[in-house]
Amino acid sequence: MFSVFPTARLRPSPFYAAAVADGMTGASIYNRMIMPSSYGDRDAEYWRIIEGVSQWDVGVERQVQLKGPDAGKLAQILSPRDLSKCKIGQGKYVPLCDHQGTLINDPILLKLADDLYWMSIADSDIWFWARAIAAERGLDVDITEPDVSPMAIQGPKAEDVVAHVCGDWVRDLKYFWFKEVEIEGIPVAVQRSGWSKQGGYEIYLRDGTKGVQLWNIFKEAGQPWGIGPGAPTTAERTESGLVSVGGDTDDKTNPFEVRLGKYVDLDVADDVVGILALRKINKEGPQRHQLGLVLEGETPAPLEFAWDRIEKNGASIGNMTNCVWSPRMKCNIGYALISTSYKSGDSVEVVRSGKAVAAKLVELPFL
Amino acid sequence: MFSVFPTARLRPSPFYAAAVADGMTGASIYNRMIMPSSYGDRDAEYWRIIEGVSQWDVGVERQVQLKGPDAGKLAQILSPRDLSKCKIGQGKYVPLCDHQGTLINDPILLKLADDLYWMSIADSDIWFWARAIAAERGLDVDITEPDVSPMAIQGPKAEDVVAHVCGDWVRDLKYFWFKEVEIEGIPVAVQRSGWSKQGGYEIYLRDGTKGVQLWNIFKEAGQPWGIGPGAPTTAERTESGLVSVGGDTDDKTNPFEVRLGKYVDLDVADDVVGILALRKINKEGPQRHQLGLVLEGETPAPLEFAWDRIEKNGASIGNMTNCVWSPRMKCNIGYALISTSYKSGDSVEVVRSGKAVAAKLVELPFL
Repeated sequence: MFSVFPTARLRPSPFYAAAVADGMTGASIYNRMIMPSSYGDRDAEYWRIIEGVSQWDVGVERQVQLKGPDAGKLAQILSPRDLSKCKIGQGKYVPLCDHQGTLINDPILLKLADDLYWMSIADSDIWFWARAIAAERGLDVDITEPDVSPMAIQGPKAEDVVAHVCGDWVRDLKYFWFKEVEIEGIPVAVQRSGWSKQGGYEIYLRDGTKGVQLWNIFKEAGQPWGIGPGAPTTAERTESGLVSVGGDTDDKTNPFEVRLGKYVDLDVADDVVGILALRKINKEGPQRHQLGLVLEGETPAPLEFAWDRIEKNGASIGNMTNCVWSPRMKCNIGYALISTSYKSGDSVEVVRSGKAVAAKLVELPFL
Repeated sequence: MFSVFPTARLRPSPFYAAAVADGMTGASIYNRMIMPSSYGDRDAEYWRIIEGVSQWDVGVERQVQLKGPDAGKLAQILSPRDLSKCKIGQGKYVPLCDHQGTLINDPILLKLADDLYWMSIADSDIWFWARAIAAERGLDVDITEPDVSPMAIQGPKAEDVVAHVCGDWVRDLKYFWFKEVEIEGIPVAVQRSGWSKQGGYEIYLRDGTKGVQLWNIFKEAGQPWGIGPGAPTTAERTESGLVSVGGDTDDKTNPFEVRLGKYVDLDVADDVVGILALRKINKEGPQRHQLGLVLEGETPAPLEFAWDRIEKNGASIGNMTNCVWSPRMKCNIGYALISTSYKSGDSVEVVRSGKAVAAKLVELPFL
């Protein structure tokens, strides 16, 4: 393991000082920002998400703001998912693709007004990509990164904590819907969302000078429910079948290969970026698909930076794109991005650090 | 400081195992890859670049390959620098801008053939940005990330080492020119380049399975000259006045603000992305410019993740975008991105960790 060299090319979020004060020990880099990923006790952090309530600095989920007369038009041009019924106050999960149908990001699109959208993005440079499409199409829309930084409250007790701070109306929010409010004078948007399947909210801070203050409001309010710091965990997201674009995908992956086909509406207009390619891929059928892997062995496997090769009778048939010990399943699990010739139930071998490990293909999600 | 959580979203380079074997202790994340940045003795690493020869894993400098009948046309459309006289075997430093003239990357463009170019990029997602422009313009060109990973040999003794391995022809290479050759059967391109001003070469490895082998060839060959592992250093690059796009720039910075105006040819064709905006900015004059800062104090200042505010009489007038102890100047130096109302020789204050530090504006480079 190595430590990260400070440079202004990598930025802290408005919550960073609070995360450091709470004992952050590990982090990842995401959208050229620091994303706290551990506070020194990964086991406790995992169970806090599964059974309690956890507070995350996910300010790295940057917003790409579309504002102006053509904001809605551009949102649809960038989204191979039909947005015509999207209401103000609603969010939608959208797989962004390039013209070849390759997945390049999977933001939540938030409609704040008819002429104002945010894309709450995963880890890639969508602000200048969106600007390129808008400029080439001659659209009248300003594309910027506004002063907006999400903090997540996740876990089965998250609703109680957020209701305690914001009011019981948060209990009625539908998934990905949001409301713009103030918390002790701090402007935020409160959305039911978050990168886990344990339930919760994302609080979009709209004033970067108030990060520590907002963090501490939830930290204090959550004490009766045992709130503590945490982060998206590889174990929970893998068990839950969540996709990490850039982690589980490469520069050839389309949405159909990684179980995101249901978010593609093939009948959107022809001017939507990538839709012509996506129709063709859908018709011909993707070459790879994403399945779960259950590995043999009873010792937690180490996390790794790279993909591992999957083999059958010595021939390469795909890749294991992540691998982690599941505390609930008590085995090592991962995702396969693998030839569609192989199905759930098949036995394969995964080559890790030069050693073949027996594994079984299963359907996702695991839990 | 924190350690980085392993995830397949962040990749090692083909040289990673060699860097680990050589004792890598610190790294940065760049283009979602691991860039070794220290081997435990920053002082020795600095002087090795200044006085000897240093070996760097810079595989994070990814190549965006343009291949096909319209490759040259696209290269010029993306480059606000005239490429009409660029020869096969020549490289050119190019500030890439969006349609608003905002700097988004500053690759070296390598012309390998009339229908084949690489852009050896800094830290942003140019592969899908270039694909967007090509597709919107209907150009016949394939844009991919090929299996190419640079390793740098830098320092005043680099020429002797590279000549010893490759032959004396490398002594005649002009700056940014390159040649495709094999080293003990490993396909590479050898270019006179590298992110320091101490002289040297970048060896573009063209077979990702041979990274450790190539690393060790240079490691062994360089022993008589005292070669050792290293990395681009904040101290050397700051002293030398090199720009770090994304570090010294924000999402509004244009090339004229950061001393890159000399690489913009205002008379390129109107279809070049950003040229209309760049002509306007040039005519009106940029609002900010980049100068050096010499700070008071005789103790090395810590490296930081964020920009610091520059003030004059309590008013904010710009930002210090980097700050580092200069071992040769024996003081803390940095860059100012500051209102053009302030000039070399002016005294200002830099606010670091809440404390004002006196500083003087100077011309760049420092050395």
